[in-house]
Amino acid sequence: MVAAMVTTGTRERLVTTAQRLFASQGVGPTSPRQVLEASGVGQGSLYHHFPTKHDLAVAAVGATVEQALTAARRDLEGDGSGDPGGGVEALDRVVAYVTRPREALAGCKVGRLTSDQAVMDDDGLRDVVTAYFVRLLAAVTATLREAGLPADAARDRAHAAVAVVQGGYVLARATGDEDAMRAAVRGFVALLAPEARR
Amino acid sequence: MVAAMVTTGTRERLVTTAQRLFASQGVGPTSPRQVLEASGVGQGSLYHHFPTKHDLAVAAVGATVEQALTAARRDLEGDGSGDPGGGVEALDRVVAYVTRPREALAGCKVGRLTSDQAVMDDDGLRDVVTAYFVRLLAAVTATLREAGLPADAARDRAHAAVAVVQGGYVLARATGDEDAMRAAVRGFVALLAPEARR
Repeated sequence: MVAAMVTTGTRERLVTTAQRLFASQGVGPTSPRQVLEASGVGQGSLYHHFPTKHDLAVAAVGATVEQALTAARRDLEGDGSGDPGGGVEALDRVVAYVTRPREALAGCKVGRLTSDQAVMDDDGLRDVVTAYFVRLLAAVTATLREAGLPADAARDRAHAAVAVVQGGYVLARATGDEDAMRAAVRGFVALLAPEARR
Repeated sequence: MVAAMVTTGTRERLVTTAQRLFASQGVGPTSPRQVLEASGVGQGSLYHHFPTKHDLAVAAVGATVEQALTAARRDLEGDGSGDPGGGVEALDRVVAYVTRPREALAGCKVGRLTSDQAVMDDDGLRDVVTAYFVRLLAAVTATLREAGLPADAARDRAHAAVAVVQGGYVLARATGDEDAMRAAVRGFVALLAPEARR
């Protein structure tokens, strides 16, 4: 029992360390040895849990994706009170998703992976990134359907909403000004929901 | 005279080769030696024109930026007939900019540089990327002002327009589906200019 708990803790420490290093320096340049040293676990534990860098990367990118989806669903599905929409109008929940404060200058932990050649060249890793955006777009589309939009318009507008967030990160990083992301989001929200409470 | 022309041709060949390699594999992993070999020019010419990789990168990224700005201005400033707007309404010119067909799966040649650590860590290179987005945003803002928007709204909406294009590239690359970019652009245009001729 104690042994199992220690094992779980070690695996988690390796995953969170890999997540942190991937976010700061990219997947390609991050070696399993760096993760090993930064996490402080024993070498045997690393190879026990993750025989290859691919295995470690899939686990770490997968964890980053799950955390990002959980945050998005919290915005898009309301307060989880059991009351559908949690008392907040569907369109306002999409506004809550796009306007959520983000570390604009750091870039999106998932979106940036699409420019990481080490990720895009690895089918398993790329699939994890693809699944994130497919599921995120489905969640935004569903909320816009709830708001009364026809299927095609909901799908297109969901793509625009997610693109504005991703492009907002690009603009903030490119200009070194996090207000660039806020301006993009404001411009989009003024068009999407001119009457949104915010 | 002939010598000068040959020199110009050699410099251009180095720059276009570097542009191509940067676009396909990133700035960081591209060595001057690769550019030298792929361009077929003599080693002396490379070091004559570009003593360091930084010099070559600034020239190549600068050329990519100029080409991208020229394309954007062609959309945003109309047909160049001397008639302001070239007979096309200002809002329709912004629509022309965002809907222009793009190689979505290849990613934006400039936008992707914001995820290239070798670029972002080099002040001179980063400045070239920053200047691109500052000038592009100014051009879109000016066209939206022409369309009658107040300054703040024009600025925000210009950020949203450029972000949708940049985010559209991210979505297309992430999902491996170039229609993801088209959907984002359609969703945005339906909000920006519901009556746009297109």
